[in-house]
Amino acid sequence: MSSEFGKALKVQIFGESHGKAIGCVIDGFPAGETIDSDALYAFMARRRPGGNSLGTARNEADRPVFLSGVRNGVTDGFPICAIIENSDTKSGDYTGFLRTPRPSHADYTALLRYGKSVDMRGSGHFSGRLTAPLCIAGGIAKELLSRRGIYVGAHLKSVGCAEDVNFPLHPTKELFESVAAKPLAVIDEGAADEMRAEIESARAEGDSVGGSIECAITGLPGGVGSPMFDGVENRLAAVLFGVPAVKGVEFGAGFNASRMRGSEHNDPYILSCGRVAAEKNDAGGIVGGITNGMPIVFRAAIKPTPSIAKAQRTVDLEAMTDAEIEIKGRHDPCIAVRAVPVIEAAAAIAISDLLLEEKKWN
Amino acid sequence: MSSEFGKALKVQIFGESHGKAIGCVIDGFPAGETIDSDALYAFMARRRPGGNSLGTARNEADRPVFLSGVRNGVTDGFPICAIIENSDTKSGDYTGFLRTPRPSHADYTALLRYGKSVDMRGSGHFSGRLTAPLCIAGGIAKELLSRRGIYVGAHLKSVGCAEDVNFPLHPTKELFESVAAKPLAVIDEGAADEMRAEIESARAEGDSVGGSIECAITGLPGGVGSPMFDGVENRLAAVLFGVPAVKGVEFGAGFNASRMRGSEHNDPYILSCGRVAAEKNDAGGIVGGITNGMPIVFRAAIKPTPSIAKAQRTVDLEAMTDAEIEIKGRHDPCIAVRAVPVIEAAAAIAISDLLLEEKKWN
Amino acid sequence: MSSEFGKALKVQIFGESHGKAIGCVIDGFPAGETIDSDALYAFMARRRPGGNSLGTARNEADRPVFLSGVRNGVTDGFPICAIIENSDTKSGDYTGFLRTPRPSHADYTALLRYGKSVDMRGSGHFSGRLTAPLCIAGGIAKELLSRRGIYVGAHLKSVGCAEDVNFPLHPTKELFESVAAKPLAVIDEGAADEMRAEIESARAEGDSVGGSIECAITGLPGGVGSPMFDGVENRLAAVLFGVPAVKGVEFGAGFNASRMRGSEHNDPYILSCGRVAAEKNDAGGIVGGITNGMPIVFRAAIKPTPSIAKAQRTVDLEAMTDAEIEIKGRHDPCIAVRAVPVIEAAAAIAISDLLLEEKKWN
Amino acid sequence: MSSEFGKALKVQIFGESHGKAIGCVIDGFPAGETIDSDALYAFMARRRPGGNSLGTARNEADRPVFLSGVRNGVTDGFPICAIIENSDTKSGDYTGFLRTPRPSHADYTALLRYGKSVDMRGSGHFSGRLTAPLCIAGGIAKELLSRRGIYVGAHLKSVGCAEDVNFPLHPTKELFESVAAKPLAVIDEGAADEMRAEIESARAEGDSVGGSIECAITGLPGGVGSPMFDGVENRLAAVLFGVPAVKGVEFGAGFNASRMRGSEHNDPYILSCGRVAAEKNDAGGIVGGITNGMPIVFRAAIKPTPSIAKAQRTVDLEAMTDAEIEIKGRHDPCIAVRAVPVIEAAAAIAISDLLLEEKKWN
Repeated sequence: MSSEFGKALKVQIFGESHGKAIGCVIDGFPAGETIDSDALYAFMARRRPGGNSLGTARNEADRPVFLSGVRNGVTDGFPICAIIENSDTKSGDYTGFLRTPRPSHADYTALLRYGKSVDMRGSGHFSGRLTAPLCIAGGIAKELLSRRGIYVGAHLKSVGCAEDVNFPLHPTKELFESVAAKPLAVIDEGAADEMRAEIESARAEGDSVGGSIECAITGLPGGVGSPMFDGVENRLAAVLFGVPAVKGVEFGAGFNASRMRGSEHNDPYILSCGRVAAEKNDAGGIVGGITNGMPIVFRAAIKPTPSIAKAQRTVDLEAMTDAEIEIKGRHDPCIAVRAVPVIEAAAAIAISDLLLEEKKWN
Repeated sequence: MSSEFGKALKVQIFGESHGKAIGCVIDGFPAGETIDSDALYAFMARRRPGGNSLGTARNEADRPVFLSGVRNGVTDGFPICAIIENSDTKSGDYTGFLRTPRPSHADYTALLRYGKSVDMRGSGHFSGRLTAPLCIAGGIAKELLSRRGIYVGAHLKSVGCAEDVNFPLHPTKELFESVAAKPLAVIDEGAADEMRAEIESARAEGDSVGGSIECAITGLPGGVGSPMFDGVENRLAAVLFGVPAVKGVEFGAGFNASRMRGSEHNDPYILSCGRVAAEKNDAGGIVGGITNGMPIVFRAAIKPTPSIAKAQRTVDLEAMTDAEIEIKGRHDPCIAVRAVPVIEAAAAIAISDLLLEEKKWN
Repeated sequence: MSSEFGKALKVQIFGESHGKAIGCVIDGFPAGETIDSDALYAFMARRRPGGNSLGTARNEADRPVFLSGVRNGVTDGFPICAIIENSDTKSGDYTGFLRTPRPSHADYTALLRYGKSVDMRGSGHFSGRLTAPLCIAGGIAKELLSRRGIYVGAHLKSVGCAEDVNFPLHPTKELFESVAAKPLAVIDEGAADEMRAEIESARAEGDSVGGSIECAITGLPGGVGSPMFDGVENRLAAVLFGVPAVKGVEFGAGFNASRMRGSEHNDPYILSCGRVAAEKNDAGGIVGGITNGMPIVFRAAIKPTPSIAKAQRTVDLEAMTDAEIEIKGRHDPCIAVRAVPVIEAAAAIAISDLLLEEKKWN
Repeated sequence: MSSEFGKALKVQIFGESHGKAIGCVIDGFPAGETIDSDALYAFMARRRPGGNSLGTARNEADRPVFLSGVRNGVTDGFPICAIIENSDTKSGDYTGFLRTPRPSHADYTALLRYGKSVDMRGSGHFSGRLTAPLCIAGGIAKELLSRRGIYVGAHLKSVGCAEDVNFPLHPTKELFESVAAKPLAVIDEGAADEMRAEIESARAEGDSVGGSIECAITGLPGGVGSPMFDGVENRLAAVLFGVPAVKGVEFGAGFNASRMRGSEHNDPYILSCGRVAAEKNDAGGIVGGITNGMPIVFRAAIKPTPSIAKAQRTVDLEAMTDAEIEIKGRHDPCIAVRAVPVIEAAAAIAISDLLLEEKKWN
């Protein structure tokens, strides 16, 4: 059941990297919502392989075909099935990894979990390619949220040691759009140059590099979410760790809060234009699992692409001897770059799910 | 439904800080498991208020009474209900917070979410006291796991700027036990002194301080968990963010991975005593959502106690004017200290749930 | 997880017949709902053993104690835990049934499922006594529904071959109340006499007799529920088969529909006082899983009490020989009698869950 | 979420009668299971429109295409997506039903639930055509169960007043196969003649007729299932009421049990070939929600096809006047006929789900 999440908005993802098609079933959007295909394609283009000179050479149109749930561009209230056919696959690249598993790839763990029938061509169901259907669902969610004045935006917070500035206290829709339009989704262009240098340097050495992504959600009312195990943080984290390569999630001040005093970390309430607000946002918009009306802010740590050209040590599982592998094929030197819209998609779905469940989807 | 989690092992927590009793229903342990009450009480004593000179003055016996599911100290396969009666409550301390909400407490968000009928005496259902029933369930889970050779241990990784060393690559049961036996759960005694100084300094100033906790789970087989949204990281994070004050969760190298190269971050497979292992553990024991047989390692960021004696700015929600509050009452200057067993409890339940679901509970 | 149900209103039942206490956790009622204890006790008295000369001799006060979630008689939005302490238990009556299982009791199946640690004193967690906490949750649900103009009522449709008349097309609240006030919950007093004769005759022979219950829910708006696997029928049936001894559930014309022509079974739409209604109600108020605004009507078949005084054949599981048992102790000759409020309780919870989930709880 | 069910084996159904494609995602079958396409097609042919002179004239190949989860005819452990393209649709037949809703069809309730954007061409997502993807999932489940010695078979128990005999106490695989091979799935050929007469008579009058289906599941071990709300009966009923037109479900003696004495209804345990068995099976193989090792036996009531050629009274929802409609198009005079494999499919999925969840899938 691991490929599904959501309560009032369920998203079920299916497909393998080198199978016939990948896709998703999205169940829970109300009838009568118009889906703007152009906006969706534009969003999906942001994560597309080949869309960016810094990424992998694999090129797929990634245009979703809707099989159900949408009629004349309008949702009909029933489950939406959307698929993307796989075309540009080179399965030959991946043979042998069930014998000599790639370090920090899912080859070995998939073998332990599923046995030898597992389809790990192109990393199979573990492939980053499966984030394409996540972006179908998330792209629709983002669009429908934006019509309700709720905006989801993210930027590349860091690549290696190169760091972008943080989002301002109240990031605007326009800031989100301008960041999203850039080849490298940053706020500060100077940071972009440093990041490019980090990526090129890693690529030149047959290596890869990690990064982090900061995401904000604005326009949400206060009072969304619940205490304990069904808070907004729990919901977002549960989805975000489903995005391949995410190894950490923090809200507001996050790990930095562990180094702060209470008097420094607490967000005083103030009156702003006659309304209650917080003066700053170290809580990341969530207290006791419930939104307080400030933007939700979180960061996700993205590990370096595990596929690197450099020789790596592993084990030959048949011979039970030490072994060395070199991974050929097309790989992103920094998956954090393309993960930016994926994080937005995951966040948009989780938030839509919450709003639909609480019937605050107006 | 926010006070419940788990699939094959469900834990439902109930109670308010100043109500008649708090407790939990635990559904899913098989029949025939012996529960060692002394071990459970000893575990619960680790989070008890008053058990430690650095904590709050509130003193509760916190001895759980089992109403069902356990017969002569042995589980009978049916839901276990355990309760703790509330005795030492001073509700007077908390009046007025629905009018002038405490910064970074759940007063304001609870009001938005539940309306004025919400019981926020002692923070009500949002209180850290609700981690006591979590520790009943988690203490039982820890004990039953340990009989299966699976050990869960945590230490205080940091308080403010004082830092303990990390767990070694393969932490032993003995290390877990020696850390748990200390007044401050650290590995390095020198770190303990620095942490005490941080806490005393915060307390002296009527302030509080944050911290972080590192937790490890050893003895788990490889192949546990699933890809995407039902991985071990998703499951753990979903529970951990349910522990009050947790603002970040990271696995293995975590946020540090975002600064690393792939060649540095990837964990090479090696043969160790004839078995496949990873040479190091930057993955934190989880790849593609699935355990690889190495210890699971994660860290949680704990924000500073929001209750501080210092005057704080807030808003008077009735008069709609700026206001100032001083919080009286008994508070921990550093909740991270007492959160150590709570993090262990949360982890033990999540892992037991997974093993029971996958029928790897032997 | 079998002792829990519901999505937006979760009810978790715990306890064994002869354990310390039985009870339930009810999670999902909004804050601010007043609970009328007297109404609740009056409702629970309807299923109480000893409340009726036709039932078992076991006598329990069955007064629930609320441990959490209710403050000064008003819900606070958090999980409600209510318990009933067990007092009048005679465990000696039940020894040996794991060796020579009682026919059509759960002794043998519980042994297969849980092993020898299972607590089957008084049938343990399988006991009809566990319907008391179900009636706590259901009694509250019934009361809160009635404040919204939604009424749930049931009557004993049949005992053996004695049959009551059916509910009229639009049963009133007053009819529900007058039926509930009778010692035997029937519409037609003549039927009551025949039923009493059936029950007394069964008792006199050391035997028991089955029955059926018809339940109606009025005042529900149209448009509640969903197609396929989450329809109102699916939801109700899933709960109803959780009431011990229920062996069949049918909606509207039910099994009789299988003998009808479409022209006879179809319910024509008519205008009634300017509103759309159905002229008759062979659909039982549900079409395509969704309410049509007519009363929901269903019937449940209740098997005869499996505990009978007559000698019965069984197997000695240790000696693996044929055996004969006589069941001593206190038993209802017709459990259908006391199951009437239990069926109402189950229906009220299922409907409240649906309304809360769809945010039609106003 | 209404189009999905299952816990360890989730089946999500999507599509509308007259949309691009219908299909399902099946998540939970282990890797390495071989799927025999011919067996699957043969099974699906049993519910196909046009496969039988007694049914509708709509003719669809209904050959599923697997998009994911199956590689070279073998499951790979990941979600299986299978689709059937819609080809032979005549949408014109259905216009206007949102204005003058068809009695006992979902037109009116769908309108109340989803609003005017609902796609009700061919009854949309409510169409009996959506049982085709259910039969994909169920056909695979049946096949995989049969390899484990677990057989699921059903027969047409009645059509109008024409009744087939009941299954014998221990129906064989061969009986299931011989019944399935007949044009009308009955045991007693004499009954088939009477049923045909009932159907032809209804058709000749522009009418339809109801029926009932008896289903048995053999080879299941005892000890499967759980008490209360997660018993085998609850699980089966929750799925069965998802099959369009099912209005009643009963297990074992079912409603007849309500007329029986305990001494008549109780199933004595006996030793049969050295093993514990029940002498008869009025419990339908389930006691306390748990299997006892006897065949599971249940019956489902199927209402008459609501689409009939005869003129029917309804309401014009725009003019708010009484109206009359005549339904044109292609309809089965007795949907019970084609529902037989659908009931088998639903049962096979529910049982597979339980066995997978309890890890009794060997």
